[in-house]
Amino acid sequence: MIRTAAVVGTGLIGTSMGLALTRRGVHVHLLDADESAARVAAARGAGVFGPPSEPVDLAVVAVPPTRVAQVLADQQRRDLAHAYTDVASVKSATALAVSRSGVHRPSYVGGHPMAGSERSGPLAARAGLFEGRTWVLTPGPETSSGTLNRVLSAVALCGAVPLVMEPGVHDRAVALVSHAPHLVATLMAARLGGASREALALAGQGVRDVIRVAGGAPTLWTDIVRSNGPAIAEILGDLRKDLEALTRALNALEVSGPESEEALASLVDLLERGREGWESVYEPGGRIPVERVTLTVPLDGGPGEVDRLIDAAEGWGIDADGIRLSWSDADTELSALLAAPAPTAEAVRRRLADDGWRVTVAAGS
Amino acid sequence: MIRTAAVVGTGLIGTSMGLALTRRGVHVHLLDADESAARVAAARGAGVFGPPSEPVDLAVVAVPPTRVAQVLADQQRRDLAHAYTDVASVKSATALAVSRSGVHRPSYVGGHPMAGSERSGPLAARAGLFEGRTWVLTPGPETSSGTLNRVLSAVALCGAVPLVMEPGVHDRAVALVSHAPHLVATLMAARLGGASREALALAGQGVRDVIRVAGGAPTLWTDIVRSNGPAIAEILGDLRKDLEALTRALNALEVSGPESEEALASLVDLLERGREGWESVYEPGGRIPVERVTLTVPLDGGPGEVDRLIDAAEGWGIDADGIRLSWSDADTELSALLAAPAPTAEAVRRRLADDGWRVTVAAGS
Repeated sequence: MIRTAAVVGTGLIGTSMGLALTRRGVHVHLLDADESAARVAAARGAGVFGPPSEPVDLAVVAVPPTRVAQVLADQQRRDLAHAYTDVASVKSATALAVSRSGVHRPSYVGGHPMAGSERSGPLAARAGLFEGRTWVLTPGPETSSGTLNRVLSAVALCGAVPLVMEPGVHDRAVALVSHAPHLVATLMAARLGGASREALALAGQGVRDVIRVAGGAPTLWTDIVRSNGPAIAEILGDLRKDLEALTRALNALEVSGPESEEALASLVDLLERGREGWESVYEPGGRIPVERVTLTVPLDGGPGEVDRLIDAAEGWGIDADGIRLSWSDADTELSALLAAPAPTAEAVRRRLADDGWRVTVAAGS
Repeated sequence: MIRTAAVVGTGLIGTSMGLALTRRGVHVHLLDADESAARVAAARGAGVFGPPSEPVDLAVVAVPPTRVAQVLADQQRRDLAHAYTDVASVKSATALAVSRSGVHRPSYVGGHPMAGSERSGPLAARAGLFEGRTWVLTPGPETSSGTLNRVLSAVALCGAVPLVMEPGVHDRAVALVSHAPHLVATLMAARLGGASREALALAGQGVRDVIRVAGGAPTLWTDIVRSNGPAIAEILGDLRKDLEALTRALNALEVSGPESEEALASLVDLLERGREGWESVYEPGGRIPVERVTLTVPLDGGPGEVDRLIDAAEGWGIDADGIRLSWSDADTELSALLAAPAPTAEAVRRRLADDGWRVTVAAGS
């Protein structure tokens, strides 16, 4: 357990940690090179302004990646804390810089909470920022278990889920799921800078989502991206090959003949691979086949009946793709077929019956 | 006004229109080549299954873009309605196909509601899908005003905002704000198909938003994209130039010297252009300078005070970037500075005073 902590760097992440830890009873000290940022964090209730009079249990260095090693070394010299962690989004370069800057290794463990916002600064912070999020920790062979346990305790108090990883594995992973997506969103957003008012009137939720992260602070992202360049470049290099094939295909679709058919096949292939990638993020469990049981619910066709059943079924973990409607051969009787996961099917059947639906259970489908 | 309508093609869009029009008292007939889809739409309450016995006021052809002209011509021959529209997301190719297929032009006006979902089919439909959305109409010189008015009436009943455009202008606009973003999301999603479980554990809301639209049905998007190939290819060609410069920069950042500085400048430039594009979508009013008045609110530093003020200010149209905290010279007194748009500043001041805040008004800032 930790009772006292210091946050060095009261931006979005540091202040959010201060708010989360304070709420759970930790006494937090707030420091920032920009004094007014630390004062704002204090006014938000993230802790008290200024350094502690004696070493705290844990210091969190929440400054941009390229400054982590220097700030860590400085604060260790001042004996700010018994244990230290950082929140930099790139870990190999940080680990290298840390090893060069003379940081005391047993009392340091690298960290990276997978949470953020396109807004920055202490006013954008919130205590719930880390709730349910993954928090990567990269302990080295020299990290003491006491240090690791203090950081694990802080992660738990923030409501996050710790995940221990090698720095290099982490950096390749974030290049793929964070840095490359950020730059891809930026590339698309850059195309919209000169858009006409008329074109912008047609912008819907789709493009807004695609470019949302491009609203992030350019200076912060320059710092993040420059620390992980080669890993990101590799992914974008692969993406570029797909993009070249796509542009060729789009132009070839106009002509008719075998060239156009090939172009169409290449387009379909890309869209299908995109859908597979989407599934791996949105439906990660989708690859593990779940045995399902079909529940048949006869309907009388009254107004709103189907919608009531869909709403109820979704509350029981049956999504829209697991619901079909079916007519009897004579088109006179309508039934809903619900594909319920086998382990919960009986519970769902009972709930349906309790709510007044007639329901029969078919064999596994 | 329209009293009767027919929806041909009861997918997401057609069924949602059926639901919206039915809710507003229009008698809707539902038709689909896949009879069961029309029956599902009817069971959802989107109208009655099957064709009308006499021509309806308006028929909506809600089939994929490449089939619009044929279905329109077929239904006109059957005298389904007095007026016709479609909802295809590409308008030049549709207009060309319509002119070739012998469609009666005075009774047809092209349309495209800027609304959708990554889910498809009648079970995903909802009456509120078009609420507040832009709905493009592309009347030609031969379109009768009676036809245009019937379609305008349907658009209004769906709660959408009509916008008249030339087909070519529409297609270049949707290439930029819809088709290119969709394909960019797809290119990124395709990179995630082979991601390890560990990497996916680090995926946060950022990447989910970037790739969300890539969950759309590949067959539908093949159809959309192939009808607007050259316009999309032009945008992606420009994007590719930025991507090539970016990949070069990411690799050059590793070395030191002038090459690295140039790379850094190019990276910063891209991130800033991305941020500008983001602003043009998220803060379209941001380019018009709004005069602001600074309201100064002295604070006593009590717990939650700053958060209460931020919450209140956001409710009055002052976003987080318009709020700063400031200390007196002796660091003893804290004040919040709210940059309120001049036209509403006095109203905000009065609301603050009513809620018990002390507030002073400074000159325009």
